[in-house]
Amino acid sequence: MKKVIKNGTIVTATDTYKGDILIENGVISQIGASLQVQDAEVINADGHYVFPGGIDPHTHLEMPFGGTVTKDDFETGTIAAAFGGTTTVIDFCITNKGEPLKKAIGEWHAKSKDKAVIDYGFHLMIGEINDDVLTELPSVIDDEGITSFKVFMAYKNVLQADDETLFQTLVQAKKLGALVMVHAENGDVIDYLVKKALAEGKTEPIYHALTRPSEIEGEATGRAAVFTGLANSQLYVVHVTCAEAVEKIAEARNKGIDIWGETCPQYLVLDQSYLEKPNFEGAKYVWSPPLREKWHQDVLWNALKSGQLQTVGSDQCSFDFKGQKDLGINDFSKIPNGGPIIEDRFSILFSEGVKKGRITLNQFVDVTSTRAAKLFGLYPKKGTIAVGGDADIVIFDPNVERTISAETHHMAVDYSAFEGMKVTGEPVSVLSRGEWVIQEKKFVGKLGAGEYLKRAKYGEMKENKEINSLSL
Amino acid sequence: MKKVIKNGTIVTATDTYKGDILIENGVISQIGASLQVQDAEVINADGHYVFPGGIDPHTHLEMPFGGTVTKDDFETGTIAAAFGGTTTVIDFCITNKGEPLKKAIGEWHAKSKDKAVIDYGFHLMIGEINDDVLTELPSVIDDEGITSFKVFMAYKNVLQADDETLFQTLVQAKKLGALVMVHAENGDVIDYLVKKALAEGKTEPIYHALTRPSEIEGEATGRAAVFTGLANSQLYVVHVTCAEAVEKIAEARNKGIDIWGETCPQYLVLDQSYLEKPNFEGAKYVWSPPLREKWHQDVLWNALKSGQLQTVGSDQCSFDFKGQKDLGINDFSKIPNGGPIIEDRFSILFSEGVKKGRITLNQFVDVTSTRAAKLFGLYPKKGTIAVGGDADIVIFDPNVERTISAETHHMAVDYSAFEGMKVTGEPVSVLSRGEWVIQEKKFVGKLGAGEYLKRAKYGEMKENKEINSLSL
Amino acid sequence: MKKVIKNGTIVTATDTYKGDILIENGVISQIGASLQVQDAEVINADGHYVFPGGIDPHTHLEMPFGGTVTKDDFETGTIAAAFGGTTTVIDFCITNKGEPLKKAIGEWHAKSKDKAVIDYGFHLMIGEINDDVLTELPSVIDDEGITSFKVFMAYKNVLQADDETLFQTLVQAKKLGALVMVHAENGDVIDYLVKKALAEGKTEPIYHALTRPSEIEGEATGRAAVFTGLANSQLYVVHVTCAEAVEKIAEARNKGIDIWGETCPQYLVLDQSYLEKPNFEGAKYVWSPPLREKWHQDVLWNALKSGQLQTVGSDQCSFDFKGQKDLGINDFSKIPNGGPIIEDRFSILFSEGVKKGRITLNQFVDVTSTRAAKLFGLYPKKGTIAVGGDADIVIFDPNVERTISAETHHMAVDYSAFEGMKVTGEPVSVLSRGEWVIQEKKFVGKLGAGEYLKRAKYGEMKENKEINSLSL
Amino acid sequence: MKKVIKNGTIVTATDTYKGDILIENGVISQIGASLQVQDAEVINADGHYVFPGGIDPHTHLEMPFGGTVTKDDFETGTIAAAFGGTTTVIDFCITNKGEPLKKAIGEWHAKSKDKAVIDYGFHLMIGEINDDVLTELPSVIDDEGITSFKVFMAYKNVLQADDETLFQTLVQAKKLGALVMVHAENGDVIDYLVKKALAEGKTEPIYHALTRPSEIEGEATGRAAVFTGLANSQLYVVHVTCAEAVEKIAEARNKGIDIWGETCPQYLVLDQSYLEKPNFEGAKYVWSPPLREKWHQDVLWNALKSGQLQTVGSDQCSFDFKGQKDLGINDFSKIPNGGPIIEDRFSILFSEGVKKGRITLNQFVDVTSTRAAKLFGLYPKKGTIAVGGDADIVIFDPNVERTISAETHHMAVDYSAFEGMKVTGEPVSVLSRGEWVIQEKKFVGKLGAGEYLKRAKYGEMKENKEINSLSL
Repeated sequence: MKKVIKNGTIVTATDTYKGDILIENGVISQIGASLQVQDAEVINADGHYVFPGGIDPHTHLEMPFGGTVTKDDFETGTIAAAFGGTTTVIDFCITNKGEPLKKAIGEWHAKSKDKAVIDYGFHLMIGEINDDVLTELPSVIDDEGITSFKVFMAYKNVLQADDETLFQTLVQAKKLGALVMVHAENGDVIDYLVKKALAEGKTEPIYHALTRPSEIEGEATGRAAVFTGLANSQLYVVHVTCAEAVEKIAEARNKGIDIWGETCPQYLVLDQSYLEKPNFEGAKYVWSPPLREKWHQDVLWNALKSGQLQTVGSDQCSFDFKGQKDLGINDFSKIPNGGPIIEDRFSILFSEGVKKGRITLNQFVDVTSTRAAKLFGLYPKKGTIAVGGDADIVIFDPNVERTISAETHHMAVDYSAFEGMKVTGEPVSVLSRGEWVIQEKKFVGKLGAGEYLKRAKYGEMKENKEINSLSL
Repeated sequence: MKKVIKNGTIVTATDTYKGDILIENGVISQIGASLQVQDAEVINADGHYVFPGGIDPHTHLEMPFGGTVTKDDFETGTIAAAFGGTTTVIDFCITNKGEPLKKAIGEWHAKSKDKAVIDYGFHLMIGEINDDVLTELPSVIDDEGITSFKVFMAYKNVLQADDETLFQTLVQAKKLGALVMVHAENGDVIDYLVKKALAEGKTEPIYHALTRPSEIEGEATGRAAVFTGLANSQLYVVHVTCAEAVEKIAEARNKGIDIWGETCPQYLVLDQSYLEKPNFEGAKYVWSPPLREKWHQDVLWNALKSGQLQTVGSDQCSFDFKGQKDLGINDFSKIPNGGPIIEDRFSILFSEGVKKGRITLNQFVDVTSTRAAKLFGLYPKKGTIAVGGDADIVIFDPNVERTISAETHHMAVDYSAFEGMKVTGEPVSVLSRGEWVIQEKKFVGKLGAGEYLKRAKYGEMKENKEINSLSL
Repeated sequence: MKKVIKNGTIVTATDTYKGDILIENGVISQIGASLQVQDAEVINADGHYVFPGGIDPHTHLEMPFGGTVTKDDFETGTIAAAFGGTTTVIDFCITNKGEPLKKAIGEWHAKSKDKAVIDYGFHLMIGEINDDVLTELPSVIDDEGITSFKVFMAYKNVLQADDETLFQTLVQAKKLGALVMVHAENGDVIDYLVKKALAEGKTEPIYHALTRPSEIEGEATGRAAVFTGLANSQLYVVHVTCAEAVEKIAEARNKGIDIWGETCPQYLVLDQSYLEKPNFEGAKYVWSPPLREKWHQDVLWNALKSGQLQTVGSDQCSFDFKGQKDLGINDFSKIPNGGPIIEDRFSILFSEGVKKGRITLNQFVDVTSTRAAKLFGLYPKKGTIAVGGDADIVIFDPNVERTISAETHHMAVDYSAFEGMKVTGEPVSVLSRGEWVIQEKKFVGKLGAGEYLKRAKYGEMKENKEINSLSL
Repeated sequence: MKKVIKNGTIVTATDTYKGDILIENGVISQIGASLQVQDAEVINADGHYVFPGGIDPHTHLEMPFGGTVTKDDFETGTIAAAFGGTTTVIDFCITNKGEPLKKAIGEWHAKSKDKAVIDYGFHLMIGEINDDVLTELPSVIDDEGITSFKVFMAYKNVLQADDETLFQTLVQAKKLGALVMVHAENGDVIDYLVKKALAEGKTEPIYHALTRPSEIEGEATGRAAVFTGLANSQLYVVHVTCAEAVEKIAEARNKGIDIWGETCPQYLVLDQSYLEKPNFEGAKYVWSPPLREKWHQDVLWNALKSGQLQTVGSDQCSFDFKGQKDLGINDFSKIPNGGPIIEDRFSILFSEGVKKGRITLNQFVDVTSTRAAKLFGLYPKKGTIAVGGDADIVIFDPNVERTISAETHHMAVDYSAFEGMKVTGEPVSVLSRGEWVIQEKKFVGKLGAGEYLKRAKYGEMKENKEINSLSL
């Protein structure tokens, strides 16, 4: 059945205007000042913003980490995402050295297939480059539609790749049409500082932050940027947290290097002092890279405003405080890294960003949806509100005030990193390809309704090749 | 009568998609995958791009300069603009010290009223700040809708304002909601270098460039940026030509200063060597700031790509080679500054920018139209293709190849600065508020059809206050 | 009679070693491990440093300012200087527009001739460049030996020169072999901010600092550096106070521009909060540029260490608190700018710099003496301890601890800016051309013993033309 | 027997003056305007410069490399050094992983003991940090007087240390009082680029340069600088070749990081085009890092002038063209890296630096001798001409013109990298601790006369702890 969303204020990465949206067969077929449609379900969006569904380019659902597994899987994770205004997630498929890439991809399909309530895709971790990997990569891109590779510069002896692997991945990505993503911290220095801290009996959560100084995030970011320029390739720096890294990205962009940066809500509103909370509560705020001193927040906000950073992902990677985070009660290095964010991305960014005048409403849409769609080969099906695109739509109340709390969130974990934070604005209803997922703040979707997304190559979606250019 | 544009590829600053556009009463009322409309004139745009009409934020029509007057007035100038895909110009209203601002504004209304074939607005030059000026300014903004002020840091003893005037203008602009524009070159140094060159018998056109080195454009740009930050105000740097100025703008933006930069087609594709053409032909290429060494072009393109520069204006300021430019045949300092560009902005930027992969199609729309609409208080009526906006529309053939020439252009001058340049892509038809101005490459508009645009305050249009926010 | 200084630790800008120094006819004739000299007065310097006499390149003795005159003249000023380890001062000769330069120079000779107890030279202020000035300049250099020109970018309508004057001064200096010195603050912006503050009833001393923000010192410094590069000339930035200015100097030096920077003791150890002292005491700390926020001190120290700043002058410019500073009791802009420092330069820099490990002992000598000698055409007669040089020598006790106080200092003013500050190290005895000026902390010199110093051209003394090169 | 050097122009890192020098027991005992000494050998230095003997902080004598051994050993190498004005070399003692450090040190003593004709010391390569190494290090410093450690960031799988090793070395160096030296290139990226080039059949010498781009020298330099700041340690970057590396060093120094940079004559006067010489002659110019494009030379000269680089070493590492360099005739990666320079350091730097006005005469002494003495714990015995110091002295004719050639040089190799280069200035006579080594351009020294130098800790020699400070 057709649907028509009436009287809302439609917002894209560029435009803000009043209009009605007609949805047919899951696709936006018409936008008009006042559409008169027969036989359509009418949704009144008066007084609301109508946003393109969010794209979260950075999630870790049901991911093994440090002997445990993230609490939210593709069921609870995507439901919570939908509550939070997100209609697409791109999850990191973790590979193991020496095993076929397809094995890991198969596992990720198995985790997600019957559970996801919204559409999803995968990034692929590259831990090594050898003949087997080189043989598999073309099929990963062409058959699986996985067009982004993740390389870790940290987690020594676990996930960390050496510089030659990173460089080769950049070379291969350029050749094959993929975007390389890096976790940019110097794992060697961290490894030394962690061992030193533990040897000195420094075991509390705050030492997680103190053993991962911002200088070495800046260093690794700069190193990856230099490699990208040399390889004439393309790079996306995940979870940028600090001034040093922003500076390196800006420098590289000014030189014309094809480099993009993502930050996360937690780095925009929380800071290092949270790790000092008593009773081991600091463990709730253990991310890698860590939360930084408060002054870095201004730098991050400003980089979003000026366009030096381009996306906001969640880095969803949730663990219970009791039973998971407390694995590290006597040793900060054993605290599982990460937190529950997937549901709060829109609310925090809208409330702290748009409402406080730090970014514009259009920039909000760009960083939460449009830019990721373009970078990761989902545009124009995803990432905007335009005729011909998927009807992934969020109806958003910009005025409601509420308090974030674990008691009311839909993630499977026993705490919220933003407990007690007052925010203005909340998604009210969410459509995925024209079907209800959230209706008036209630989940009405169904498990497995989300489709796996084969994504276009970076080379093809890169902004200067436009969708219809071939047809002209 | 309604019009419907069918089968085109609609392009905004964000989106690129196939769709039909319905125009009613000069406004876009509907966009759909396939609109079936009765009683409408049907325009087939198959195989064409459908762009929002260009906004040229930088023109000098019928402007007195150095004892002569620019050749193109609001008649020939706006006709040529329309041929070139531009549907709005914002012209600089030049004031004289000691005279009421309203006197100059009145003159500009007189020049334009019955001539302009497309819509237009005015920027206001500020040459001094005194009690009279302070008294007049609120009315300039509120009654005239002139919300941008131009200050010259060059042209000593003629247009140049001193630093205190610039600083005060920034303070007033912040208070009143206007955007300050600067011509950023150090006029004192130029004045000395010009006198020295002439004293040494160096009279040829090339000395125009050599006496205005890029370092002092960078210096003046940086100075204005510092003032803007101190005054917590907003700045738009016109006609940025060089690496030094781009660097200063990027630095200021990285610090969160509200500063924007414009470049022009001539700086993107021509270079200083043109001023050395024999037989005084170099005079055709005398702009201020001057054309630079070729390597600066890459910096400018890259700044458009990375977002460090945000707009491309024409700085249309045309003089005949015979009879005007030759005022300086024995003295480069007497060559009238400027050239005919207003018609070539789209073609050059599309051909050299989009076709050569330096900027994306969406960036093309942003820098030629959308960004100027937002910065100068014209959005959302102008600057995009969205329901509710004015039907200022360009139907553009991206594949036609042609050669720019004075013989075929519509500007009133006897030469083209781009004579012989081959370009791909050309506006075919142009609508202003739904009415034909150019139809199949023929002018079909009428004199005086263009309306004067009262523009919104910068404070209100600044992107984080969106159009419908109050109504929610 | 010969003198021999025995057993001291001789320190130059490079070397530190034990040795004896023989002085004959006011000149160092021999240095040895253990000199056995007949008929010589023996001075035992065991346990002391033996430094070259300090050169203070920045003093204002008996200078008219704001309707009053600095308290210390060439008598009290040079006596205090000698107590402080300084054996040469270079004072600023202030000119008036429209009057011959020689008139001002004559006045300065009259002020100094019979008073100075140590050697002295003059810098010449340039307020305008016109035919008269151009005619006089060669003789100023050749006959008067004044080879450094001072240009003020601040003090609007009083001392301030416009950019064309500054640029022309740089051009002339290059041609004639002089070094241009600038007071780098943007006087236009200051003038506006001062008027605005006063109009708002903000009259206390702290507003002196708040109306002269560091950004516009950085701006003016950068502007002067750009001019210097363009003119291929040479520049010395006096009294650098802030990070912004240091950054501009470093940038220019990295580009190969011939630019040098001086800071002063007050900026290294005092900060902006001093201007908030109650009972108008803040007026004691009114310098231009003003004291800055404390964090700038680290930047200044570090710039001395890394060589981005090269000298430490005093900017001696003393006024009594009662009767002079209080001219501004109801209006901060009427407080005479400046303070008494000439006596404290060595003690503060040694105690806070060398003793605290921020600079080395050799750097101490370089920034207090050697570098100024080389830049201002006094080397090798002055500025080092080497055979053939003038016996301007300071015997310094590095271990004595004392407290700076107006009660014990020898400047003519009624307060000390460093009242109560504990320092380690003090000059014990001072020789000027081999004659006692200070002996065991007592003044034993005589008025008028100081000689006027005609200085060598910058072009000739520039370090790559060495003293004996012609004779080889 | 005493010696007296008469009538020369004595030059130190600060001073230039005429004077006589008395030498007793190998030490400078007296300097005077005109010394009358009985029973002394008189050396007439009229018309000559008298420099402190050069210190070459970067040599590889009799070093195994790539299956061969450098041609010059401690005999031919130190004789050639002396001809070139150098009286002290510090050679790199190469260690092997898994073997005791003392084993390598023992080998180096054996190589040098009976051969060196001038004094010498060792730097120690650190390839790994483990318990054995940590146990040995204190004795290396205290007993052997080896107070500088070298870490390679390049030569993957051979000499390259990982980042954790570099970081730990910096931590240990800080603790123990040593200076860390790095070869800063990213070995991982080089390794990939070399394999790729060879796989593509690119085997000529020029590919040595093309597979080691300057960007990754800049990257590694920046990385090491960040580590140094974090470890609060001290770093010396050897053989800096390019703008990217200079920029990183300058940035770090501006932040107060204790970092120093060395360049070499070959990078100052030769460029990448030399590697394209036909008939495999390009192999003569294979250094690592490689020669760069010519424009980098200006950056290096300017960095010496402005103090951003502080020393000039030779990186002496000589191989015959026939029989050694030609190991790589079919594979550039097998060409032994390095060249013969030890003899030409003074001549090239004086002729191209001082004579051409790029650096001053005093800077010449600083970068060839004094700074190295201070950084590497040899001052004040070495590195200057001052009473009490070793009589390591060079008598230098600044006016003689000659042509560098393998036919006349004293290094054991069959070619000169500077063949045919005309230079002005040459050492005429050289004294080591008062004894003749070179007399009137003839070698008159004896094998084994050179003494091994135990060097002071960096912590103690760091400039702000001065030699006699404890005795005061």
